[in-house]
Amino acid sequence: MKKVNIAVVGCGVVGSSLISQLDEKHSRIIDEFGIDIRVPKILVRNKDSKREAPKTSVLYSNDGNVGNFSDVLTTVLDEIANDDKIDIVVEVAGGIDDAYKIITAALTVSKSVVTANKALLALRGNELYTLAEKNGVDLLFEAAVGGGVPIIRPIRESLAVEHINSVRGILNGTTNFMLTQMTRNGMSYEQALVEAQSLGYAEADPTADVEGHDAAAKIAIISLLATGANALAQDVQCKGISGVTTQDISTARKMGYVVKLIALVEERDEKSVFLRAEPTFVPVEHPFSTVHDGFNAVFVEGEKLGEAMFYGRGAGGDPTASAVLGDTIDAAINISNERKGAVVGFAFDKTIADPREWVSKFFVSAEVTDEPGVLAQIAGVLATHEVSVEVINQDGHGDTARLIFITHETSDGSVRDAVSDLETLACVDSVTAVYPIMG
Amino acid sequence: MKKVNIAVVGCGVVGSSLISQLDEKHSRIIDEFGIDIRVPKILVRNKDSKREAPKTSVLYSNDGNVGNFSDVLTTVLDEIANDDKIDIVVEVAGGIDDAYKIITAALTVSKSVVTANKALLALRGNELYTLAEKNGVDLLFEAAVGGGVPIIRPIRESLAVEHINSVRGILNGTTNFMLTQMTRNGMSYEQALVEAQSLGYAEADPTADVEGHDAAAKIAIISLLATGANALAQDVQCKGISGVTTQDISTARKMGYVVKLIALVEERDEKSVFLRAEPTFVPVEHPFSTVHDGFNAVFVEGEKLGEAMFYGRGAGGDPTASAVLGDTIDAAINISNERKGAVVGFAFDKTIADPREWVSKFFVSAEVTDEPGVLAQIAGVLATHEVSVEVINQDGHGDTARLIFITHETSDGSVRDAVSDLETLACVDSVTAVYPIMG
Repeated sequence: MKKVNIAVVGCGVVGSSLISQLDEKHSRIIDEFGIDIRVPKILVRNKDSKREAPKTSVLYSNDGNVGNFSDVLTTVLDEIANDDKIDIVVEVAGGIDDAYKIITAALTVSKSVVTANKALLALRGNELYTLAEKNGVDLLFEAAVGGGVPIIRPIRESLAVEHINSVRGILNGTTNFMLTQMTRNGMSYEQALVEAQSLGYAEADPTADVEGHDAAAKIAIISLLATGANALAQDVQCKGISGVTTQDISTARKMGYVVKLIALVEERDEKSVFLRAEPTFVPVEHPFSTVHDGFNAVFVEGEKLGEAMFYGRGAGGDPTASAVLGDTIDAAINISNERKGAVVGFAFDKTIADPREWVSKFFVSAEVTDEPGVLAQIAGVLATHEVSVEVINQDGHGDTARLIFITHETSDGSVRDAVSDLETLACVDSVTAVYPIMG
Repeated sequence: MKKVNIAVVGCGVVGSSLISQLDEKHSRIIDEFGIDIRVPKILVRNKDSKREAPKTSVLYSNDGNVGNFSDVLTTVLDEIANDDKIDIVVEVAGGIDDAYKIITAALTVSKSVVTANKALLALRGNELYTLAEKNGVDLLFEAAVGGGVPIIRPIRESLAVEHINSVRGILNGTTNFMLTQMTRNGMSYEQALVEAQSLGYAEADPTADVEGHDAAAKIAIISLLATGANALAQDVQCKGISGVTTQDISTARKMGYVVKLIALVEERDEKSVFLRAEPTFVPVEHPFSTVHDGFNAVFVEGEKLGEAMFYGRGAGGDPTASAVLGDTIDAAINISNERKGAVVGFAFDKTIADPREWVSKFFVSAEVTDEPGVLAQIAGVLATHEVSVEVINQDGHGDTARLIFITHETSDGSVRDAVSDLETLACVDSVTAVYPIMG
């Protein structure tokens, strides 16, 4: 039997759940894999914080005796990489600077790393993958994307046999919960945000979630893995849900769509990819339309496999810790077999394509003056930009009317230019909404 | 670099696609995993059959030279296991007897096996897993269940860290295609069958698909893997879709459900599981409701992970071959690392629970005489069997009426007994439909 020692960095919700699950499965992991995983070190900010963890356990010792939880706590960052008895560093603390220090230090001395830190990976993923590769160790991060949805692993494992054309995802539980509330219960954006905050789905400062930054970070991580395009979160053409109105949602519904925040990476050609995260009209027939509340889902289009979807709970301590534990066992198996898993540190020289060149159908709505000739003027502007229209619809109400139309497949840039020209027309009060429509 | 030689058993749609994909990815697999996979032997029934395969390729040689497709064909079954240069046997021929002979012979001489043969695994899976285990080799079978849906692998990999409470699946593409046609286009069962046959979705003798046997075989395979209950296809409480009427489908729709053939394994307690495959009312809000046509999906409920779903193309040569290739690479990696993958050959002493004890909500419809007092009689029978009713609805039309009701959670046995008593009532012409309702 092989003993593998792990250091757990961070002992919050995920860290505590990880230790509990590890404790519970300890003997099963020994039976199944012949690996005895111990936790001789846990890095915390403050030793005296109140935290729940199994009171006594064989976990907290590396000499076969039962150790004490409090004995393995440390607040000294340097102790992690410098401790020769640690084989794997499991980072579940979050944050950028300290996590970066710990992970690079660990990889440099050839310790495998498991992390749930999407922000860090979206910022410096390729650098870290390359460092892991160079030192012949694993850097695993299933929990960084999609929480309990097993997405990283299937993508990684299918890469050798599959060319992936695109990955689309509902990757942010907070916004999906809010959009579900707005759709089901007719809540406004503001009401849904208050509800999400009161239930603990949204932070006091919800910017990272509602403005799409979290989804952008996740799709950037997926991008490198699935397509070899080394993207950062800031490379993603990103739009949040704060502009989504109940009117947009009810119009969508009438037309057979639901509004979801969809992040995507899509191959433009062999050399470049599109990266986007934005509110999108999803047909009710599409499996994404039934991904409610805090659930996440990822839709992969592969050349041979066709379409595949993975769906599960996006967040929460237990699912995330469960994903972290899976990675930890994988890394431990690899150590006990003196090998490492599939390589992920390949950045092909792919670039991020101009978002204006991305092609989709679009939904556009505008408030217009209700008088003859308006439609002709608008049609003229659209024609100038070679935007052809599949459906057009006008609702009169008093002096103004609401005009909505759905375009045929056209480029993002053409729609943007057309919209910006429409707004200069005297008969157009404002363009109230522009959404891409999923095919 | 490690050379790994595989024998491909069967060169039909899946076998040909496998060889093409292997040919295409050959150098990528070398780059990524350092494994040079060759195909020095292909077992076929008839060497002279017309078949498409890459004309010349380095695949068909194990000495580094380019070989010929025709040179590696053999019709002699014994050549497979007895050939010392073969490391992995990849069985994609189907059928029971020959496949069983080849696979047991291969495992006995410690060759790893990859198979797509669900019928064989549903019949003798545990025996084969045990043989593989005993000889320290892999027996991998992703493609046997769900075609291109990666389900076996995530279940296998998450087992060490996760207790799986239940697995539900839409596992048969033919019936799902037919039910989609009946739902979308109002086709009758017979029309949908003709359509499925004309498009090649259904066999001339469609029994295995439409009577649920195929779905039953697949859930039996999943059962052993996910819960440790060693089930055969015949242990599954099974009902096909041939009794599903367009009236049932439209009634379901009005009440917010779609009809799907759902196969399930569900833990009754620590010692036994329920196994079923039957037409089921699925709420339109559930992700299963958007699994259309030939797509398959599997819904896993784990203790920590919560709910997770995997969705993808259920059949077809390319997705199936893609899954087989993934397994083949896994087995080859294990051989080159002198290890084997996660053990699957564990049959806990779990039994198959009495299907009458399974608890669910049920939908029941009956043709009844349209006269006063009928409801009271029916309610009396239901009360006798302790079946309590959530919704009851009566549609009069002339002398007879259609009565439908939805029960609260109750046991399968109570519903069966109540239905059988209802049919003895003078006022009940016939009980026309009984469906479980997914929660």
